Amino acid sequence: MLTVKTPDEALQIIYDRFAPLDSPAEIVDINSAHSRTLHGDIVAGEYVPGFDRSTVDGYAVIAADTFGSSDAIPAVLTLTGEVLMGTSAELTLTPNSCVAVSTGGDLPDGADAVVMLEHTENYGDGLIGVTSPVSPGNNIIFKGDDVTPGTRILTKGTTLLPHDIGILSALGVVEVSVRPRPIIGVISTGDELIDPAETPNRGQVRDVNTPLLAAQARKYGAEVKSYGIIRDEESALRGAVLRSASECDITLISGGSSAGTRDLTARVIESAGELLFHGIAMKPGKPTILGDIGSKPIWGLPGHPVAAYFVTELFVRPLIARLTGAKLNLRTTTAQISEAISSNHGRAEYIAVILDGNTAHPIRGKSGLIASLAGADGYICIPRDSEGIPKGAEIVVMYFG
Amino acid sequence: MLTVKTPDEALQIIYDRFAPLDSPAEIVDINSAHSRTLHGDIVAGEYVPGFDRSTVDGYAVIAADTFGSSDAIPAVLTLTGEVLMGTSAELTLTPNSCVAVSTGGDLPDGADAVVMLEHTENYGDGLIGVTSPVSPGNNIIFKGDDVTPGTRILTKGTTLLPHDIGILSALGVVEVSVRPRPIIGVISTGDELIDPAETPNRGQVRDVNTPLLAAQARKYGAEVKSYGIIRDEESALRGAVLRSASECDITLISGGSSAGTRDLTARVIESAGELLFHGIAMKPGKPTILGDIGSKPIWGLPGHPVAAYFVTELFVRPLIARLTGAKLNLRTTTAQISEAISSNHGRAEYIAVILDGNTAHPIRGKSGLIASLAGADGYICIPRDSEGIPKGAEIVVMYFG
Repeated sequence: MLTVKTPDEALQIIYDRFAPLDSPAEIVDINSAHSRTLHGDIVAGEYVPGFDRSTVDGYAVIAADTFGSSDAIPAVLTLTGEVLMGTSAELTLTPNSCVAVSTGGDLPDGADAVVMLEHTENYGDGLIGVTSPVSPGNNIIFKGDDVTPGTRILTKGTTLLPHDIGILSALGVVEVSVRPRPIIGVISTGDELIDPAETPNRGQVRDVNTPLLAAQARKYGAEVKSYGIIRDEESALRGAVLRSASECDITLISGGSSAGTRDLTARVIESAGELLFHGIAMKPGKPTILGDIGSKPIWGLPGHPVAAYFVTELFVRPLIARLTGAKLNLRTTTAQISEAISSNHGRAEYIAVILDGNTAHPIRGKSGLIASLAGADGYICIPRDSEGIPKGAEIVVMYFG
Repeated sequence: MLTVKTPDEALQIIYDRFAPLDSPAEIVDINSAHSRTLHGDIVAGEYVPGFDRSTVDGYAVIAADTFGSSDAIPAVLTLTGEVLMGTSAELTLTPNSCVAVSTGGDLPDGADAVVMLEHTENYGDGLIGVTSPVSPGNNIIFKGDDVTPGTRILTKGTTLLPHDIGILSALGVVEVSVRPRPIIGVISTGDELIDPAETPNRGQVRDVNTPLLAAQARKYGAEVKSYGIIRDEESALRGAVLRSASECDITLISGGSSAGTRDLTARVIESAGELLFHGIAMKPGKPTILGDIGSKPIWGLPGHPVAAYFVTELFVRPLIARLTGAKLNLRTTTAQISEAISSNHGRAEYIAVILDGNTAHPIRGKSGLIASLAGADGYICIPRDSEGIPKGAEIVVMYFG
């Protein structure tokens, strides 16, 4: 007998049962690598910067030559050349000489500091007066200050953000090995469902879950294969599920709302594989099924769109991260709840909220009323053992997606 | 004489000077509409649900027929039929009768409540015992409970999230008018720059900013046109800028690091248009230029990648939102700073942080060292008039992107 699991137990089962996909890495250009998950660590192969660079516009000097200089008694140095941007400084600095250099420019050998232009005077005839002393190392970024060879810069499982793309390009990594996107098969089942483009007759409802779950799956980094609307008929559903289980990494069967459809989904999973759990102690989302067909996770999601949405956010998203080996980076904030929320009954309760500054307004709607989610920023969780939260209490808000 | 602007002044100039693009709406399938910005309001054209639906598996009844029923004295009703999922209930309920109905099923005319299966007994011979009374409206979602025709469900400027895609499909909106993505032209300039795929000689550095800014621009909803690396030569830069200004909605010139390059960028903008400001009182990012060529915004960004990154996050992102008419939805959280940060000097200072639970670890690196941003989750701002923040202080963290 499969018992209802708590949300934490359900997550643990997901983690224990399913391992990262062993499909080979995909090589992508860094310009297409945003939001992809690194397949391996990125280890620097060279120094960044590759040479000592000036951080100011001014003159490369031997610091000791400027000691004691002041407006009244400038150190006078002989200008022996200029380092052009993008070229190596071919000169070697000799005592009491200097070389003009721009921000980011290479330093000549022998130089150990740069004097800012603002602290110099050009006397003409190749003579430069330094009016303020510098210490060795002043106004220089040294070779390897940013990165040295062999340093692990990014770790596998990192989901690449724009600044990571910048880091990769600085290292000369213009193609990168990433985890393939998991493929998610989406199946809607229910005799009452019609394509959203059609006009429902009385008794029919549009299939909200296919576009909804597909959008979530894509947002979480997966590719989507839609198997359309399947009637509540065992052999038809079994056919679609087996096809998805063989073609996809994850299958989402979004059940019709009736108990008959839910039973059908459980039967189909049991006949071809194993049921892992049947029910999560949460609201909305209790009638959620997870199974395993050929080591592939098969979800039976609630038919109510809001419930299916929450289960996908809370459980399918971590599963996608698990399969890609990605770190799951949940973004949260704290806010004051704008109204009291009464206790629930033995189930963790998830409530969508709209954030307005530091205030979270809970969206109280009947489960399944998808339009109530318009404008929602995230959600809060009332734990199963909570007696509710009073108005004004500080709560943690999880941002959606 | 153009003075240095504060960050707020710079944002105000962006807002006052540039209006939403008047390019025509783009029509996209809802399956491609995620993260796009709505061109107009979405007003419901019909009722959702379109008929009164049962929220449980059970029997549709006239509530009054069940009053006073109990386990000891059930109300006995005649089963006159069954509503099949997806079909309209053709029956009309007469007193002391009931009709079997599944969750989500249509209700027969005359029914005003549904009794859950669990509160009934099937005596056979078409007789059903009801062991618990229901009130009118129990276990029903009424036609229009979710949406009624004429209701504005989503407002223009909304950036569509997965749950919005669900809402659209529930309304039968399978194609939606969205704002065109702004096109951003990216130009890198500096004699020291080479393509990231090349190996730098001494004095040369890889062009980090083109892939970095392109990734940011795409993340913020723009399309990118890259104009490559332009040498520090006025006519070459002018040519690239004019081409970008005519082909793109926004131009990002990411300057080389030297003063010479910055002056060149300002000169090119002034010769073809108008400089709006030259410098923002922020760190990093002070040497930032904004201009206007033919009513198109032209940015001269700092050459240091970290500075260019922050300016793009803080100013180019709001500009993209302004041009698409999108609401800018910044995600923030609060955290305790893990170390004291000393006061800065008359400039708002932006510092990247790594979040670890409720603690924010500031990343203290030399400006321009892009690798320091590895793992950064967001940033904090030390206002220009602040004297710094003590260790353990509660601070607001803005999530990146």
